[in-house]
Amino acid sequence: MDDHTLQVGPVRVQADRIVIATGSSPAVPAAWRERLGERLIVNDDVFDWQDLPSSVAVVGAGVIGLELAQALHRLGVRVRLYGRGERVGPLTDPALQTIARQVFGETLPMTLGVCHLDARREGHTVVVAAGAADGALQDERFDWLLAATGRRPNVGKLGLEHTTLPLDPAGVPVVDRRTGQVGNSSVFMAGDVAEDRPLLHEAADEGRIAGDNAGRFPDVRVRPRRAPLAVVFSEPQMALAGASHADLMRAGVPFQTGSVSFEDQGRSRVMGRNQGALHVYGEVATGRFLGAEMLGPAAEHIGHLLAWSVQRGDTVQQMLDSPFYHPVLEEGLRSALRHLQRELRMGPVPVERCLDCGPGA
Amino acid sequence: MDDHTLQVGPVRVQADRIVIATGSSPAVPAAWRERLGERLIVNDDVFDWQDLPSSVAVVGAGVIGLELAQALHRLGVRVRLYGRGERVGPLTDPALQTIARQVFGETLPMTLGVCHLDARREGHTVVVAAGAADGALQDERFDWLLAATGRRPNVGKLGLEHTTLPLDPAGVPVVDRRTGQVGNSSVFMAGDVAEDRPLLHEAADEGRIAGDNAGRFPDVRVRPRRAPLAVVFSEPQMALAGASHADLMRAGVPFQTGSVSFEDQGRSRVMGRNQGALHVYGEVATGRFLGAEMLGPAAEHIGHLLAWSVQRGDTVQQMLDSPFYHPVLEEGLRSALRHLQRELRMGPVPVERCLDCGPGA
Repeated sequence: MDDHTLQVGPVRVQADRIVIATGSSPAVPAAWRERLGERLIVNDDVFDWQDLPSSVAVVGAGVIGLELAQALHRLGVRVRLYGRGERVGPLTDPALQTIARQVFGETLPMTLGVCHLDARREGHTVVVAAGAADGALQDERFDWLLAATGRRPNVGKLGLEHTTLPLDPAGVPVVDRRTGQVGNSSVFMAGDVAEDRPLLHEAADEGRIAGDNAGRFPDVRVRPRRAPLAVVFSEPQMALAGASHADLMRAGVPFQTGSVSFEDQGRSRVMGRNQGALHVYGEVATGRFLGAEMLGPAAEHIGHLLAWSVQRGDTVQQMLDSPFYHPVLEEGLRSALRHLQRELRMGPVPVERCLDCGPGA
Repeated sequence: MDDHTLQVGPVRVQADRIVIATGSSPAVPAAWRERLGERLIVNDDVFDWQDLPSSVAVVGAGVIGLELAQALHRLGVRVRLYGRGERVGPLTDPALQTIARQVFGETLPMTLGVCHLDARREGHTVVVAAGAADGALQDERFDWLLAATGRRPNVGKLGLEHTTLPLDPAGVPVVDRRTGQVGNSSVFMAGDVAEDRPLLHEAADEGRIAGDNAGRFPDVRVRPRRAPLAVVFSEPQMALAGASHADLMRAGVPFQTGSVSFEDQGRSRVMGRNQGALHVYGEVATGRFLGAEMLGPAAEHIGHLLAWSVQRGDTVQQMLDSPFYHPVLEEGLRSALRHLQRELRMGPVPVERCLDCGPGA
């Protein structure tokens, strides 16, 4: 009703401070729901299946779409993955996207860069007609259409239009992720509803921060957040740690890139999982490690190693001074860091402690 | 000949400074060589095989013995692993050793705690007779006996007895691993010959340090070393990072242990690799992370994460403040760290920055 009043059915609740933690829901075009009925499914529905369908169209080439399309494909289901853009998965580094398109495209039927996508129901099946800007529509028939077209915060029915809260163009409250606070109000947001990194470990922090600051209001505190880490459980896996390539370009940070290919990396070859590459980013002049993007084996583990280094504020040199066992995939990381260190042109490593300099030097 | 003179056949070499980097060789009892002849092999010989034998006795339950015994067993070779002590592999934490004996013993034929081991040749085979202190000798017949009974620095034929270098009881020069220097002499040692962590990444540092200090002599410098990291490529894998349990007991450091079992860890169960446990050690009063031992899935990766934290001097709290994705094995590490933090009884986490305290607080 207003910034301090909630109407729940016949009950009216007054509160000095409010935390919105209503989560998010899959964002599916209403027209598809109408036309496809129960033949339209979302990711959660897949886990209710008792047996496998023969074919599924997966629309949306983000994390959820890719993970599910690849899993179903590997389970023997005929799959096609449709993506509006040219990107598959969350990597923002253009060179890595090229590799990702090639690696996943080798096995998984994909149609990317889709401009027109039309889905209609025929009996118990779904016919998807898709085409690029300049191409004719291609029809393909499936048992199901799985919409992996993103999620939307559950704020539509909260009546936020009756409040003074600042809203973005989509009607979602504008929140400060460091405090959980919406504007300067006594309203806080936490979890998926805030649509900021919808990840379990981030949501736990958001809940703690929003709850704590709601309790402390008006003495709201900025709280540290964890270094960013995202993992895609595809094969090969993907990971983003710290700042992404897009983050760095947007921020205009002067940075250099070091890279390694896993195609010829020793351990990757032994494992027969020699696909992908790792790019590491370092700050010019300071030599600080900023972030990384990766497509390749054990990305979930190397992602942790790199995110923890971002969290510590490590320099590239400090990382190179750390142990790298043999023969391991982390030696590939070392190659990328060495490459980055050369690109940063920091000069030779100074002797660890200047015993030559004498007192006061 | 002396501290500055080397006789190589007819050539006599004079040098102000000398680096000994003669490596190491498998230490095999001379009596076995004599009795078993070419039926006695060492680890390197295995990689020359063109096809697999039907049976191999592996003597020595350290890293090399365990890795090779398990690999041969999994390739279908009849194997028995003999160990003098009760330990299998390098873990020094008694509780983890118990788990390791049980986990490896479930599949790999092992005879540990061997007091008497006698090997004789009969035709083209080797008969091993082994028994515990109180037991009768058990005979078993094999194609080969693989001796994995450690390595010995290659210094026997260097004539070190003609020098003034300090030698240990086994005749190996006493070296300072921080400088590579032997005593106060102008002789330096590097690599396997120094018998200190015979690992590739350590050997590279040792070469750099010994070479650099030989060049600088007499201005010898103490150089930082990497945090210890050891990995065993068994299944499940093992890892030791930072200080081992035995190191801490020996040093008398006041420490606490946090632990997690991988038997019921979410991701381990999904992977069907839910064996083993992880122990993490933290310093009482400072809360600093000291080291860890682990038997379990992806130990090579978690070992890197932990060794890098030791290298940085992280506290347990700093590690807990780092990102842990979901669902990953690193969440098991988080459970162990939380347990450790409770055991350290450091009290609640202080608010990150004291905005309540006012100036000067």
